[in-house]
This record gives sequence, C-alpha cells and structure tokens, in this order.
Amino acid sequence: MRIQDLETPIGVVDLDRLSANIKRLQAYLDGHDIDNRPHIKTHRIPAIAHMQLEAGAVGITCQTLTEAEVMCSAGIHDIFLPYNLLSPTKLKRLIYLTRRAKISVTADSARTVAGYADAAEKEGTSLPVLIEMDGGAQRCGVTTPEGVQALARQIDSAPYLQFGGLMVYPSSAEANAFIAETKMLLAQAGLASERVSGGSSFSMWQAHEFTEITEHRAGMYVYGDRNLVDAAVMTLGDCSYSVLATVVSKPTNDRVVLDSGSKALAADMARKSPGYGLIVEHPEAVLFKLSEEHGHVDVSQCLQKPEIGDRVTVLVNHCCVSNNLFQRIVGHRNGEVELEWPILAKGW
Amino acid sequence: MRIQDLETPIGVVDLDRLSANIKRLQAYLDGHDIDNRPHIKTHRIPAIAHMQLEAGAVGITCQTLTEAEVMCSAGIHDIFLPYNLLSPTKLKRLIYLTRRAKISVTADSARTVAGYADAAEKEGTSLPVLIEMDGGAQRCGVTTPEGVQALARQIDSAPYLQFGGLMVYPSSAEANAFIAETKMLLAQAGLASERVSGGSSFSMWQAHEFTEITEHRAGMYVYGDRNLVDAAVMTLGDCSYSVLATVVSKPTNDRVVLDSGSKALAADMARKSPGYGLIVEHPEAVLFKLSEEHGHVDVSQCLQKPEIGDRVTVLVNHCCVSNNLFQRIVGHRNGEVELEWPILAKGW
Repeated sequence: MRIQDLETPIGVVDLDRLSANIKRLQAYLDGHDIDNRPHIKTHRIPAIAHMQLEAGAVGITCQTLTEAEVMCSAGIHDIFLPYNLLSPTKLKRLIYLTRRAKISVTADSARTVAGYADAAEKEGTSLPVLIEMDGGAQRCGVTTPEGVQALARQIDSAPYLQFGGLMVYPSSAEANAFIAETKMLLAQAGLASERVSGGSSFSMWQAHEFTEITEHRAGMYVYGDRNLVDAAVMTLGDCSYSVLATVVSKPTNDRVVLDSGSKALAADMARKSPGYGLIVEHPEAVLFKLSEEHGHVDVSQCLQKPEIGDRVTVLVNHCCVSNNLFQRIVGHRNGEVELEWPILAKGW
Repeated sequence: MRIQDLETPIGVVDLDRLSANIKRLQAYLDGHDIDNRPHIKTHRIPAIAHMQLEAGAVGITCQTLTEAEVMCSAGIHDIFLPYNLLSPTKLKRLIYLTRRAKISVTADSARTVAGYADAAEKEGTSLPVLIEMDGGAQRCGVTTPEGVQALARQIDSAPYLQFGGLMVYPSSAEANAFIAETKMLLAQAGLASERVSGGSSFSMWQAHEFTEITEHRAGMYVYGDRNLVDAAVMTLGDCSYSVLATVVSKPTNDRVVLDSGSKALAADMARKSPGYGLIVEHPEAVLFKLSEEHGHVDVSQCLQKPEIGDRVTVLVNHCCVSNNLFQRIVGHRNGEVELEWPILAKGW
C-alpha cells in the first residue's frame, strides 16, 4: 500500500529519515562525549524510544507520569522525569515506578522536594532528585545559585533522596556561567553535580558549546517540523513527520481548503514562517487559517494551483502537538506503507 | 468524590450548567420556530448528543465521518454531515451510514457532487445533498447565486441525489440577501430550498435575525468558553467546561507555572482576551505562554498570588479543541463527581 492510498488527514513518518535523524544526533553527541537522553514526548511511541536506545541513548526523558509508566511497561528501564510532581497520588505512582525502573526526577521548590522526601521515606525507596534551574527562558527553574544550594541541601539531608545534579531547559552557552557558579557553590557545601542535563532540539548542534552539560535531552529531532527548519537546525529533507491532507474545496481561484484543521495540525504558530504549516508541494501557498476540520489556504501566489481532490503533504509547525492528535501513526519508506504504531503514551 | 480530589490536568463538565445551556438554546430556537440541529464536534460524546435530542433537537450535526459513525452506532439516526467527502473509501462509508440513519451531506463543488452521485447510484441509495454557501467568512462555500444554481441542477439531475437545500456557516443577517437571491433563482429553475441550515454559537442568539434560516447548528453552546464569554454570548457562570490544573512551580514572586499546557488547553488564542485561558480564581493572572505540559502565568497583577500546590480552574479559549485532547471527561454537580464519559467520537 502506498501512503497516497491512505485516508486523510493522517500523520505519517518516513522511517528512513527517522532512523537517520536518530543516528545523526547520537553520532554528534557521542563525538562530544555527551550522554543522549531523548525526550519521548514528541512521539509517545515505545517502538521509537527503543530505536533511540538501540542507537546509543543512555535512557529516555518523559514529561508526564503516564508517559513514564507506558515506557516502563514497554521495557524501558532508565527514565528521567523532569517535572514537579506534587499530589499524593502522583507521588505514589512515582514510587511504584522506582521499583520497576531507574527513575530520576527534578524539583525547583522546597515544596516539591518535601513531597519527594516524604513519599520516598514512607516507602523506603531511594530517589535521585535533580534541581531544575532557569537557563534564561523563564519557564520552570530556580533562578539563583543560592536558591539551588538551599534545595540541594534539603535533598541531601532527606534520608531517602539523593542530590542527582542539575537540569536546565533549554540549554545554551549563556547558562554556562550560572551553572558553573552554582556547581562551585555546591562543591563548597560538599555536593558534587555529577550530572548536568541540558535540552532542546533547537540547540542540539550547539550542545558542545554548553560546556557544563553531561547529557542532552532532545525530542523533536526524530521528526523535525517547520520551526526546526525555520531555525536551520534541520532541513526540509530531514523532516520525517508530516500530515497528509486532501484539498476538499476551492471556493475561489485564489483559495483552497484542506481537510486538515486544528484537530490534525494543531494551532501552534511558527516562530518565523507565516501560517499554520508548510504545504510541501506548494511552498508559495499560505495556510492562513485553521478551523477544526479545515485548513484555509491562500494559493494566490502558487505557480500551479492545487485542485479539489489533490493530496498534499503538510509540514506542521510543531510536530509534538500534531502527533498527539492522532491515535496511530503510519510508518513508510519512500511512500510504501510498512507499519502502523499506536501512540500509546498519552495523558498524565 | 469531589473534583478537587481528581488528578490534574483534567477536563470537567458541570452537569447542571450543561443541562441549562442545552435547554436555553432549545427554548430560544423553539420560540422562533427554528429547528435545532446541534453540532456534536464540541463534545464528541454520545450521551451529551442524546441530552440534546431529548431536549428537542431534530437531529445532530457531525463534522467527520467517524463522528457520524460513532453517533449512529450510539443510536442517533438523523445526522447532517456538512463536509465535502471525496475519496472512494469515505464515500463507501457514507453510503453504509445511509442504510442505518437519515443522513444529509453538503457539497460546494461539481467534483463533490459527482462523487456523491456516483456512490449513491452504485449502491442504489438515495442521498440528500445541501449546497454550502459562503456567508461571508471565506471558509468553504459557493460564492455566487449562479454557482449555487449550477450545482443544484447537477444534484437534481443525478438519479439518486436530492437537492436538500442550502447551508451556510457562520450564519448572519448579512447573508440574508445572498440566500434570498439564490432561493429565487433556484425557484425559477423549479428547485425549492425547503431547508436552510445556519450555524455558529457566536451568532446563536441572533438566529432569528437570519430570516432565511430553517435550522440552526451550534456546537460550543453546551460547554461555553472564553471566546463566547468575550463575545458576550455566554456568561462565565454559564460555562460548563473547564480544565482543572495545579500550580507546580513558582520561579519568582510574579510568575507561576501550571501543570496544564498546550496538550490540555490547546494553543488557540482568544479573539479578544490576552493569553491562553482565564484562571477563574485569579482573573488578573495572564496565562501568557504554553509549553506542552506547562502553562506559564504572570501573576504580577494578582491581589492574592497563587502558591505551589494550589488548584485552579481554567476557562479555555476554545472548548472544542481542549475537550478533544482528553480521553474522558468528568461530569460533576456543584463539585461532586457524578460520572465519567469517554470521548468516543474522535477522528476522521
């Protein structure tokens, strides 16, 4: 079966490109002696996580407990979960996981550390906790070396917790000074930061410039998307994930409508390019509006205008959220369908 | 069990508000002699569709074949599917559906009509086809009365198709003239437009001003969201759907982070209000950025600042796409959990 025979909209993955992307980053990180701990939130598919491990990843990164539980059940036993887990139920699920896999977590507050400490002590389970630092992106993370030191001491003094090192997202050379200063402060307190985890696909080829790093977490590199192409981190020809769509309406000569809307492509804007995705066969077209099941396309600048019934390939702006909208993904080689993977690791 | 005991993030529905919303629109449309044919793409839950029918809806509207198949399997037998279906497989599925339910569809091109005509003739099945007109929103739809007339003739001359009337989205009084002119042209050709289907929750309380309408399709009115509150179509107290979230980080005194990101709230912007949703308990807070599993909140203007571990209620910008991100929705009354509904009608 060819992918052009599949019903649309559908998310498809070019398996040759997928393998090449996995190998390329692994080789780069190996060349710089940086551990590869890919983030599976992009694909949420155990089989792809296993491909990443077989290529040389030291373990995986998950963003939700459900992701970690599914990956653990699929036989993956080294999982980093860099998320502040707070509720008693989630802490209980976390402790259960520690009995089946090597789990490490993060915290960026005394409250989170206290929860881990209680849960680990109650169950007599050892738990490594890294400290999340704000590398400048103003997401989660402690913002001062002194703040990190205080948390590290709290972790170190909890009987069942181990201070596991430092974590930052995204990692960039700008964070080197903050990390170095923090490490020195921690060393003075007798705390070694053996593991420093950095991340992001956007900065993956600069991982070696982030000199403090010992491991890198990238997610999107397996698929690629328009944001990564915009950022010149991947080429269009590297991108393995796309959504196949069909032109279902052509209300005017300058406007066509795809059968793919925000429930297939997701409504994320690109960081640079206009519109909600690139139509590969018609790069001059602008996917200017999404309704839930329709993609509205300005084709006024197209040399050859798409017609009703034409099938097109959409490079989405953000692969992780589009992939998450499907129940399964089709894998192909040169357009020949090879397999179908359920997207198993959904939810929290 | 109380909803504050549920793990977050989670989508919840206030069942009393849900019922009130269903009754309110039904009473309004009944009062204006307009058929109510609600759009189930918002909830994708058969039980809610049945509530809508029990309140007096003449049938339902679906946007994908899978939605229609699931609703039909759940015992709903009057389904409008206003979508250009083109592929042989989808046309076959459509014809199968016509044997189990009263189905009507739309077309806005000769190509779509030709596909319906072939499929219906091949299977000897009668199929009513309405013509989608562009009411001014530049989505799908024929843009001239003459174009509609040509398609209506094509439908009328196909042995197994019936011209089923006109359809427009969104409907507004501005489209009255276009519809009236089209109806006259069709009447001259001996074609009666007995059914004129209008839609949108935004314009639902003006449905009576769209004088040509015979039925109204609204979807979001059952849940409500920030866009509808912004548009003064529903009040905050009417909205039945929300996402419960937990504050998991407070990196600075002016910034907190929720455990709900674009994989729970969806990245749709609001038409008017800033940010990615309203935090009901902290209306001064601005949910200024979403990552996949984090909602980044500026709390600098909050009188009482949320703390780590606090639970909050997020009124999302667009309820349909947020609801679609969950596998199940919890129904409650005054915070007491009453039931859980799987969101069955997902996909294409």
